[in-house]
Amino acid sequence: MTNLRVGSAFDAHQIQPGKPCWIAGILHPDFDGCEGHSDGDVVSHAIVDAVLSACSLGDLGSFVGVGRPEYDGVRGVQLLGELRGLLTQHGHTVVNVSAQLIAQTPKMAAMREECEQVLSDALGAPVSISATTTDHMGFTGSGEGRAAIATALVELA
Amino acid sequence: MTNLRVGSAFDAHQIQPGKPCWIAGILHPDFDGCEGHSDGDVVSHAIVDAVLSACSLGDLGSFVGVGRPEYDGVRGVQLLGELRGLLTQHGHTVVNVSAQLIAQTPKMAAMREECEQVLSDALGAPVSISATTTDHMGFTGSGEGRAAIATALVELA
Amino acid sequence: MTNLRVGSAFDAHQIQPGKPCWIAGILHPDFDGCEGHSDGDVVSHAIVDAVLSACSLGDLGSFVGVGRPEYDGVRGVQLLGELRGLLTQHGHTVVNVSAQLIAQTPKMAAMREECEQVLSDALGAPVSISATTTDHMGFTGSGEGRAAIATALVELA
Ligand SMILES: [Zn+2]
Ligand SMILES: [Zn+2]
Ligand SMILES: [Zn+2]
Repeated sequence: MTNLRVGSAFDAHQIQPGKPCWIAGILHPDFDGCEGHSDGDVVSHAIVDAVLSACSLGDLGSFVGVGRPEYDGVRGVQLLGELRGLLTQHGHTVVNVSAQLIAQTPKMAAMREECEQVLSDALGAPVSISATTTDHMGFTGSGEGRAAIATALVELA
Repeated sequence: MTNLRVGSAFDAHQIQPGKPCWIAGILHPDFDGCEGHSDGDVVSHAIVDAVLSACSLGDLGSFVGVGRPEYDGVRGVQLLGELRGLLTQHGHTVVNVSAQLIAQTPKMAAMREECEQVLSDALGAPVSISATTTDHMGFTGSGEGRAAIATALVELA
Repeated sequence: MTNLRVGSAFDAHQIQPGKPCWIAGILHPDFDGCEGHSDGDVVSHAIVDAVLSACSLGDLGSFVGVGRPEYDGVRGVQLLGELRGLLTQHGHTVVNVSAQLIAQTPKMAAMREECEQVLSDALGAPVSISATTTDHMGFTGSGEGRAAIATALVELA
């Protein structure tokens, strides 16, 4: 039997006027960010959840715990780095991750390669980023929030 | 060429006041369940659809048929057991499944491991469960309904 | 390390009264189609994005470019054919793709196998199609739009 496993996850947060916009590991200075205990980076969160699920290691909530002040405003890139450490402990390897931002803003075309570099460096494995909108429909289309999906392929120890 | 295949699926149902809440294979006694011909278990349904799609064996509708009374109120766990039988007939093996509940309720943190055990036992393969919300946005955020996504890795005969 | 990679993507478009309804590679004559520079085929678009993401070859926007008139009204099947050519150039192989239409219409049960044939022929790899609704909730449930998700497994050169 193969040691490969897949995992997938979705994340969504409300947009909060005035909060810095950290999406896919980088700061987008012209946009409002997302609510949440953390930096609200829906792309990074979906990636963490997808990798944890592929490894059967719980989910983002169990990973960071609830109400731990050291995670106030935590960056997505820091979470990916801690995830990398957890996988190293278990001997698991991330083969690749594919993640997509579902939002009207920010436009990712000019930032995609930089995001891929930052996230791949943090996770220690190739991360592909794409972006789409919901064509002005629903809660991401109205600008109320942002969402992301991610799928991970991992090789267990 | 590898015999591995991937499949993914989404499912959504409205919440129906007074209906028992079967989600991810277990009963959550403090919550209303979901509408539908079946028990409304969005997590189990997404898993069945993802595995069928990975195996190119149709979808949940073609699997259970339409309007067959023996599937009134059918439990998600029963569907997973029948799916397991179908795969055994074809000689296919589920490597793993990753599924996520997208809903404001029930909270899955305390039930996650029990759900994983019940679903893995029914399917005969490891199932990872995670949960997220849409941060009070959209139809799952308002409490109108629940959704789920699942991704499966299978090894064909 | 394995040469296998996964990719996943979501797409959504508004329904546009009077536009021909191309979904999952075929024309559905009794329904209105979807808006967009292209033919609005959410299933084909999600497949292209999922395969590109698995291969780290950008996304649909970078693939077709923006504002190029030769892509006005372009068919999903044509995009899949061009994608196939790009992958051949790189020596990558699509193992399989699983895609799902999330929409109230058209009903796919009777068309599923034809869609799978048309899309698989265009891509040169097995494509599984399923369909679900959001149970009359949200923007796909109201008939405002349609969405699709796709997951691809590829083998890199
Ligand atoms: Zn989050
Ligand atoms: Zn269902
Ligand atoms: Zn599209």
